[in-house]
Amino acid sequence: MKKFMNGAGTLAQDCLDGLVAAHGDIVVFGADRKHVRRRTLRAGKVAIISGGGAGHEPMHTGFVGLGMLDAACTGYVFTSPTPDQIVSAIHETDTGSGTLLIVKNYDGDVMNFEMAAEMAMADGARRIETVIVSDDIAVERSTRGTGRRGVAGTLVVEKIVGAAAEAGISLAELKTLGDTVVGTTRTMGVALRGTTVPQTTRETFVLGPDEMEIGVGIHGEPGRARAQLGEASSIVTLICDQILNDFGGLSGQSILLFVNGLGGTPLSELYLVFGLARTFLEAHGVTISRSLVGTYVTSLDMAGVSITVTVLDDRLMELWDAPVQTASLRW
Amino acid sequence: MKKFMNGAGTLAQDCLDGLVAAHGDIVVFGADRKHVRRRTLRAGKVAIISGGGAGHEPMHTGFVGLGMLDAACTGYVFTSPTPDQIVSAIHETDTGSGTLLIVKNYDGDVMNFEMAAEMAMADGARRIETVIVSDDIAVERSTRGTGRRGVAGTLVVEKIVGAAAEAGISLAELKTLGDTVVGTTRTMGVALRGTTVPQTTRETFVLGPDEMEIGVGIHGEPGRARAQLGEASSIVTLICDQILNDFGGLSGQSILLFVNGLGGTPLSELYLVFGLARTFLEAHGVTISRSLVGTYVTSLDMAGVSITVTVLDDRLMELWDAPVQTASLRW
Repeated sequence: MKKFMNGAGTLAQDCLDGLVAAHGDIVVFGADRKHVRRRTLRAGKVAIISGGGAGHEPMHTGFVGLGMLDAACTGYVFTSPTPDQIVSAIHETDTGSGTLLIVKNYDGDVMNFEMAAEMAMADGARRIETVIVSDDIAVERSTRGTGRRGVAGTLVVEKIVGAAAEAGISLAELKTLGDTVVGTTRTMGVALRGTTVPQTTRETFVLGPDEMEIGVGIHGEPGRARAQLGEASSIVTLICDQILNDFGGLSGQSILLFVNGLGGTPLSELYLVFGLARTFLEAHGVTISRSLVGTYVTSLDMAGVSITVTVLDDRLMELWDAPVQTASLRW
Repeated sequence: MKKFMNGAGTLAQDCLDGLVAAHGDIVVFGADRKHVRRRTLRAGKVAIISGGGAGHEPMHTGFVGLGMLDAACTGYVFTSPTPDQIVSAIHETDTGSGTLLIVKNYDGDVMNFEMAAEMAMADGARRIETVIVSDDIAVERSTRGTGRRGVAGTLVVEKIVGAAAEAGISLAELKTLGDTVVGTTRTMGVALRGTTVPQTTRETFVLGPDEMEIGVGIHGEPGRARAQLGEASSIVTLICDQILNDFGGLSGQSILLFVNGLGGTPLSELYLVFGLARTFLEAHGVTISRSLVGTYVTSLDMAGVSITVTVLDDRLMELWDAPVQTASLRW
């Protein structure tokens, strides 16, 4: 394992120090560095909070800012933030209109966010809702929990819900909107190389020189199957076929196509995959109305790619297009 | 070598297809796909053109758009674009105010851009100037040419000169400005892992499990020395010391600090390096006025990082801050 770090114990915090130093115009640390929040909060707006283990950067801290998250809580690498961290974020960002928690579907995350919501609500008349993201169609059960995992589609949920919150939508409506976006978002990924967790210095899985891991998650957990590495076209066909099947077909639909790098794959390959996925989906009657290509939801330095499809109606498209000003997503 | 591709022969073009598909609102292919240019050209503005081998994405095609480049020419992986490609870009983007070519200092690139300028000027009364970027302080002579190489600092030159061109500055002034930015920009990088050129399927250099390559370039060419991989702090100190020495000290100066990933290094580690570099430089009396952290000037999937420092005066800072709307850089 080769990494730019001073030690596994301080890695997550050292990264956050750098992020806050580089984007001090957008974000600040909360009290005791328990979370990262917007420098400027907007009164009267529902607070949107997310979080999870470190190792998925830029998610979630890179998505804090106008039009997306109000705060993000980061745990150790691949480890949920503590309830205490989440409570601190809820307290510091609640301006009276309530809080929406966006949580990826892993047992540890779900439990700690739930516990935090209970603790924060015990304090007083606080209103909190939670959206659980479960966009990964690869597996129904993983080493990290039951049900589909939350992966790259989390970005889409955070962007769309964040835009709606900025527009002054109520907590109840945001909860409904978030669940709607989760319901209309599907992701699947493949890896060419596993990743090494700094604390253990062990690779999470080891692939042969001609192998790929299909349906890989974002914690280096193995996927659905191992297969011979083929041409990019066949990989894209495999993933897009699964996604279309899971939707029951998307002919005539308008979608957001999001090609995401898992940390160690160069942008050039992501564009190549995007071009192939677009051609495949268009040949199946799908209209690519919006697109995103880049390294946003990662698994440390894993070489791999995921493809996310969100079905868009006019309202979701408008919310996707709304301005966003964060460290890693801006338009 | 494991890559998402359909074949080494079409890799560069397949990536461009995906880029243009994903960012069709910003860029289009020039005639015969010889270059990528802005969808909308602005009459009366000097055209800014750059280019180089593929494998450095998002540079340069990802920097085409408002406030930066008018066109970019891409060759095969790590191979200069042909004069023919560059001439096509000059012809299609010249709206009468002349053309500035921004060229990284490698023999192949310099020769082909020079030849293209001669060919384009032979056509008529066209005016062309060239800025050669040579920001890499690691080596004075490489396997690819004489003099310092052009690396990540090229982004800074393209951003600042691009902003000035947008503001209506003349060709002669842009040439002077470009040379000024080159003169005030220094970069050095290290790699933890080499890269594999798709055509050859050979790794450009192989490092031991505890080794790093110091002063690495962006074509997988070896650097200045090989050393034991240490803590990130010691690597940052090594690089920043060299940069400060090369400037003859920067105490009291205001700078842009740009931490760049070489393709296979996750953003979390880049932020960590940024935080350490900022602390080191501030301790040496330098003011970090502007910053950029991300994967912008790459060497395929090489694991590594470079640090770039540009000394800023008020004018350069204003040009850096000016709006930019490209695939990969936008604010």
